[in-house]
Amino acid sequence: MKNERATYMSLDRMVNPRSVAVIGASENPEKIGHIILSNNISFGFGGKIYPVNINAGDSMMGLKAYRSVLDIKAPIDLAVIAVPAEVVVQVLDECGRAGVASAIVVSGGFAEVGNVELQDRLTKTALKYSMPVMGPNCLGVIDPRSRVDTLFLPSFKLDKPSIGGVSFVSQSGAVGSTVLDMIDSEGFGLARFFSYGNAAVIDEVDILNYLMRDKETRVVIFYIEGVKRGREFIEVAKKISRVKPVVIIKGGMTEAGAKAAHSHTAALSGSSEAYKTVFRQFGLVEAKDIKDLLNFGKIFETQPHIVGDRIAVITNGGGTGVLVTDAICNNGLRLAELSEKTKKGLRKIMPSIVNIALPLDMAGDADAKRYDEALQAVCSDENVDAVIAVALFQTPGADSRVVSTLVKHGTLGEKPLVVISMGGSYTKAHKTMIESGGVPVYESPDDAAASLAALIRYSRYVHDQKTR
Amino acid sequence: MKNERATYMSLDRMVNPRSVAVIGASENPEKIGHIILSNNISFGFGGKIYPVNINAGDSMMGLKAYRSVLDIKAPIDLAVIAVPAEVVVQVLDECGRAGVASAIVVSGGFAEVGNVELQDRLTKTALKYSMPVMGPNCLGVIDPRSRVDTLFLPSFKLDKPSIGGVSFVSQSGAVGSTVLDMIDSEGFGLARFFSYGNAAVIDEVDILNYLMRDKETRVVIFYIEGVKRGREFIEVAKKISRVKPVVIIKGGMTEAGAKAAHSHTAALSGSSEAYKTVFRQFGLVEAKDIKDLLNFGKIFETQPHIVGDRIAVITNGGGTGVLVTDAICNNGLRLAELSEKTKKGLRKIMPSIVNIALPLDMAGDADAKRYDEALQAVCSDENVDAVIAVALFQTPGADSRVVSTLVKHGTLGEKPLVVISMGGSYTKAHKTMIESGGVPVYESPDDAAASLAALIRYSRYVHDQKTR
Repeated sequence: MKNERATYMSLDRMVNPRSVAVIGASENPEKIGHIILSNNISFGFGGKIYPVNINAGDSMMGLKAYRSVLDIKAPIDLAVIAVPAEVVVQVLDECGRAGVASAIVVSGGFAEVGNVELQDRLTKTALKYSMPVMGPNCLGVIDPRSRVDTLFLPSFKLDKPSIGGVSFVSQSGAVGSTVLDMIDSEGFGLARFFSYGNAAVIDEVDILNYLMRDKETRVVIFYIEGVKRGREFIEVAKKISRVKPVVIIKGGMTEAGAKAAHSHTAALSGSSEAYKTVFRQFGLVEAKDIKDLLNFGKIFETQPHIVGDRIAVITNGGGTGVLVTDAICNNGLRLAELSEKTKKGLRKIMPSIVNIALPLDMAGDADAKRYDEALQAVCSDENVDAVIAVALFQTPGADSRVVSTLVKHGTLGEKPLVVISMGGSYTKAHKTMIESGGVPVYESPDDAAASLAALIRYSRYVHDQKTR
Repeated sequence: MKNERATYMSLDRMVNPRSVAVIGASENPEKIGHIILSNNISFGFGGKIYPVNINAGDSMMGLKAYRSVLDIKAPIDLAVIAVPAEVVVQVLDECGRAGVASAIVVSGGFAEVGNVELQDRLTKTALKYSMPVMGPNCLGVIDPRSRVDTLFLPSFKLDKPSIGGVSFVSQSGAVGSTVLDMIDSEGFGLARFFSYGNAAVIDEVDILNYLMRDKETRVVIFYIEGVKRGREFIEVAKKISRVKPVVIIKGGMTEAGAKAAHSHTAALSGSSEAYKTVFRQFGLVEAKDIKDLLNFGKIFETQPHIVGDRIAVITNGGGTGVLVTDAICNNGLRLAELSEKTKKGLRKIMPSIVNIALPLDMAGDADAKRYDEALQAVCSDENVDAVIAVALFQTPGADSRVVSTLVKHGTLGEKPLVVISMGGSYTKAHKTMIESGGVPVYESPDDAAASLAALIRYSRYVHDQKTR
């Protein structure tokens, strides 16, 4: 879209609509129009909902139904279009005539299957009415605040995300729905979700422009297969990464992957080296695997940015401390050296069997009090930039009081604190508690160290930009 | 231990004892001896249990109690010693006089805290009676078949592993208990577990010798910090990796990590390059993170060995197919090329929108029938060595019938099949079903590809050994 301000307003309307028309709505549970309609109702969308279907009777699922969007005669912020590809353009034209503020075309059957001409007609229709259209061939949006939900996925198959500061953008609907489904169990919350499919009108540049200004968004995580407007993408990347981190995974970074991406969204994926260079040069944080999107997303959501790389490790398991130390070094970070003052203090409070050095192995009987004292000491040491606390809940001393201690120190906001807890159901329950408290928990040493390394890499980029 | 045959017999007695004496048993729930005693009872150990405590009355937790192991006057296969360090040697001597077949010294306070002399006396006492002793400073064993459990960790904090073919050996108790706790949720089963601590008597060489001959063990996963008998370790590594895979993670592979390991178990950890060379040369599969132990363990437990690296990918999500293709290439594997015959067959059965090539994107409405037909086709293609099936359960078509199909093709035993399913609670429930059926499921493209690559690397090693 040409006008940034107008696009911002209309994307804001899309995620926060006062009224939604579901075109292609149905009472037949097999139809995607039914799923979209009932998901909005069950998710608790608070605005007006207008079911639209050319064959509709007077009502549908307890709501007044319409045969055309033109019959509604009330302002429509968002039209969700889930009708066969061949009638999409006509429906979109009606939306334009009805003055609909924004539209999402969920339907597939366009450029992704070779129907380039049909997609061009869709684009022209949208531009004719200056109507911001997302899709076609996309999932659209879900918003935990306004509770709008345009996903045509059965509600029980997907864990709904809670409210938070991470926005997730995905070109692919499949990657979109799986990551979305994982956000809740990964313990962080969602700001915005956009699955934008073929990007016939609204593309990644528009969305990044919106998220840059969006106050709810503190971090962006992003799955992309290709960029259409290269220069504009670089422009917005440069601007957004100065104000908030963008963690990005690009599908098709290998030759075989690029070929697959091309046949998937018909996007020209470009050379992987060019992408890597752009990501590095303009401060985008590259993720190498889907897991990284989630791992990096949660540290950026809650932990302060730092440029130093001296990491303190405290642990209630010696072997795990060794592996975390290896992981720190393998990820280009350094194990901190405690100051003499801190060592002296720790020697007074730790049991005599504890070797006062990093990694600080507090022994298997470490309890909340010992964690508290150790965290107090290492966090206030000026030789320490960030802390990894290993909390193995299999041990006799670790219980939910350790959770309180970790949350206390992890939310002070001065130095980043991440937790490593690995295990089965007892541990997972405690992991959830810690993450609910706003402290990221990782299930492996490498995940924790890689996430801290990403945080520091990004912080240094921002720092370098400012001091230039 | 010198005598391999005797060591084999005694380790077998340790994991499969007919009678266990818990020395240091107590009715006080705070005591380690209490936890060990009650864990054996609650885990359902079927043999005789003798609580022993110098201050014992006539009975303890409903069992006849003894003041000394010498009072029992019946054969004792395993003595678990959980008494203060300073009385361990005396207790061990009594075990020797009582003719105890094997002993585990759970107590800490030996070489790991600098008491080398005390540990030497322990070793001498064990050798005096030719008694195989595990520890000190260890968790000991847990066995899901005999249901012996010497771990002093509260039962509710640790998910008990079910019966399977993976044996897990850990020098560190912390790494031991966390990985053990994860085995159940990772969907595979345990053969043997040994946490051997300071290795004063029985060491990694003895344990590998045992597991090499052990019929229940199909795969070994191993956390190690250092090796004491280098030459013997290489000997046994060479022998065992010809008959079964050993996945190994070495703590202290970085300089800082090695320093931490030294202060942890006082083991000389040696140069990481030397270890890497030994691992590679003698067919041990190196894991770089704890997750790899579990990821690799489960593919080796169930999937056939192959030397070819042409991987077919089928998926119900296009973007995920792209990422899996990238992951295959990043892990040194190749995307297979389907034969003309297979393509022709697929063209007949797949919907017209499906592009007949790998990765095969079967579209978001793929159901069990489509999975079945696709798997049938790719598995029987001679250009395909192994298959990765992406099953995204957020989609309308994927349900538990897809599980049945995946299990059917994944247990035929001709070509390896691994599944990628990522998501929240609905997906995790289906992941559990698939893994119960004997097919490994991974939660990221990279985990799946890295595990297949490990399988192929090991298979090639074995193949090269045979054809030499």
